Amino acid sequence: MNRQFARRMERFQASDLTPILKAAANPEVISFAGGLPAPELFPVEEYKKIAAAVLDKDGRRALQYSSSAGHLPLRQKVAERTGRLLKAPLTADNIVITTGSQQSLDILAKMYINEGDCILCESPTYLGALSAFNGCLPSYREVETDDEGMVIADLERALATEKRAKLIYVIPDFQNPTGKTWSLDRRKRFMETVSQHDVLVIEDNPYGELRFEGTSPDSLKSMDRKGQVVTLGTFSKIFAPGLRVAWVCADPEFLTYFCNLKEAADLHTSTLSQYEIDAFLASYDLDAHVERLITVYRERRDIMVEAMAEHFPKSVTFTRPEGGLFTWATLPEKVNARQLFVKALEKKVAFVPGGAFYPNAGRENAMRLNYSNMPPERIREGVGRLGEVMKAYL
Amino acid sequence: MNRQFARRMERFQASDLTPILKAAANPEVISFAGGLPAPELFPVEEYKKIAAAVLDKDGRRALQYSSSAGHLPLRQKVAERTGRLLKAPLTADNIVITTGSQQSLDILAKMYINEGDCILCESPTYLGALSAFNGCLPSYREVETDDEGMVIADLERALATEKRAKLIYVIPDFQNPTGKTWSLDRRKRFMETVSQHDVLVIEDNPYGELRFEGTSPDSLKSMDRKGQVVTLGTFSKIFAPGLRVAWVCADPEFLTYFCNLKEAADLHTSTLSQYEIDAFLASYDLDAHVERLITVYRERRDIMVEAMAEHFPKSVTFTRPEGGLFTWATLPEKVNARQLFVKALEKKVAFVPGGAFYPNAGRENAMRLNYSNMPPERIREGVGRLGEVMKAYL
Repeated sequence: MNRQFARRMERFQASDLTPILKAAANPEVISFAGGLPAPELFPVEEYKKIAAAVLDKDGRRALQYSSSAGHLPLRQKVAERTGRLLKAPLTADNIVITTGSQQSLDILAKMYINEGDCILCESPTYLGALSAFNGCLPSYREVETDDEGMVIADLERALATEKRAKLIYVIPDFQNPTGKTWSLDRRKRFMETVSQHDVLVIEDNPYGELRFEGTSPDSLKSMDRKGQVVTLGTFSKIFAPGLRVAWVCADPEFLTYFCNLKEAADLHTSTLSQYEIDAFLASYDLDAHVERLITVYRERRDIMVEAMAEHFPKSVTFTRPEGGLFTWATLPEKVNARQLFVKALEKKVAFVPGGAFYPNAGRENAMRLNYSNMPPERIREGVGRLGEVMKAYL
Repeated sequence: MNRQFARRMERFQASDLTPILKAAANPEVISFAGGLPAPELFPVEEYKKIAAAVLDKDGRRALQYSSSAGHLPLRQKVAERTGRLLKAPLTADNIVITTGSQQSLDILAKMYINEGDCILCESPTYLGALSAFNGCLPSYREVETDDEGMVIADLERALATEKRAKLIYVIPDFQNPTGKTWSLDRRKRFMETVSQHDVLVIEDNPYGELRFEGTSPDSLKSMDRKGQVVTLGTFSKIFAPGLRVAWVCADPEFLTYFCNLKEAADLHTSTLSQYEIDAFLASYDLDAHVERLITVYRERRDIMVEAMAEHFPKSVTFTRPEGGLFTWATLPEKVNARQLFVKALEKKVAFVPGGAFYPNAGRENAMRLNYSNMPPERIREGVGRLGEVMKAYL
């Protein structure tokens, strides 16, 4: 049959992620490609107790349909926790539960983007967000980005020239893919600039709690004076990603519209998962759990950075993130990381080639490396292999 | 801030469902409005055992990210079960797990619909599907529908005149909202007609297993010779809707494209829920569970139909469904069920006014009534109240 696909399918012909995830799934491969938390730190025993308690106490309700906005007690707890983290006063009315932040991105694009409207993003930016946005056929304007965040002069240029700019997508804390964090000064200047335009800001914050050292600069949300910033949070990195439970934080009126689209997308997020996470938050200390993650991830970051310094050629530079899951290595300008990826796979080590993180293509001489998902000895072994591949290839 | 919403938001200003769900949530109201299964039949104790066993055996994997297509053992079991039900040979390659069938509908519209493309549907049709489709800004052509299914002459007219027809959406078994089932002859003629066009058929089948009497006519899928039919199934009505686990059944090549959009929508469906349902299917007899549902729902259908015959004015007609969750009552032509709904709520009884099920608006003299969600005495009491409201109003 001749399939009469919609135009947007041109952007979904082949996912850059697919071969990478496949390669990463081979247990012989040391994969720095994913963004997976360390499964040995999942609170499995605690979850088992919680699951039994929820089914005993609320089984019928927890297995039934529920509201699109989410389970109210969970929204209250998320509001309290997120308000503390973002330094912004929040109530349950500011929170809607979503099926992972991926869904929040999909819905926000639907809310704002007509075909050809423009999304401003960091350069590079998170490729999963691009994939969520692509369904609405936007154009992208990458804003020059340095070690402190978006370069304000280029942001101003972009806002002046892109008449159809509707959304700005940023990850100010431990950015995916670079691991960089925006400075406080840059955040302030960013908010001053964008507040002069009717453009929505998505502040994606999956890693903010995973800070290994130093203190967090204030969130964009805390500087928001006109309901312009929507902040995304998730249980994926601080609890368990397999549950697909995240949240969007915004004005109540905005969330009414958001909820109508959420209902159209999947009615609501798993009732049972929401009851379970709510019970976990009531019975256990998530902050203490996050502290355990930080201790382990900090050690892995240290080992990764040390190993890269030891094994990578001197012409390769890399970031030393203060938190989160990723480091970003930059190769000499002429080197193509997609070609290097093929060589690396032969030596059974994987990463994500950097080109995938630039929506308008171009820069291919970088790679994203994850350090959260494996024990120290495998990090050392993998970086060693990668260093050999680089030395042979450069 | 001036919100620069996308055009599609015009279709999401206010959901018809929202006030109805709110009204239904008041425990004093006897609500025939929802489509909720009976919570007292959820296998809560069995689920508790399963949850503990899954976390013991596979905790780390079950809480981790997983593949967009779904958990392979679950896909295998769904293929075997669905193949039997649809009388079509299926393997895991024909199945992708989704976050409720609502998500399948959202993704299928994204795959096919450019703004202004046409979707053909029964008249009336399921309003949740319209809400999923609306994000892609389709036009709708309602095809005349009688007691045996779509009227073929009108379907032929629609296919001849709607040059931008891309999708046909149908629920041949215990249709939502009417409760009607297509005859075998109509199914055959439908497939003969559509097979002459490059149009995708969505066969939505959430209720097919809940047959109270008689035998099921062959599925559209079983008559599909060119990969034209995509059939949707779900655990919501035969197991538990709160888990949001459903599936789409199609050709492997088609599902590759589908999966790319599924990944963009929410990465994957809850890993834990998939492991748990898979373990339930391995350890318990879902067929026996469905038999228990059938016994209870059949009794409720009988009581509903008897009570309507006794209490409704003679000018009101209604369907006697052979399965599923809904009956459909038709009022005299001049009566507006939305106005009747307001009166009914005053008497603390609710239903869904029929107008919501017609995408192009028009017919307001009908209502959808659910009988699965409450015990016999409440069905009798509610139908009694509704009868009084009707008699006072007509």
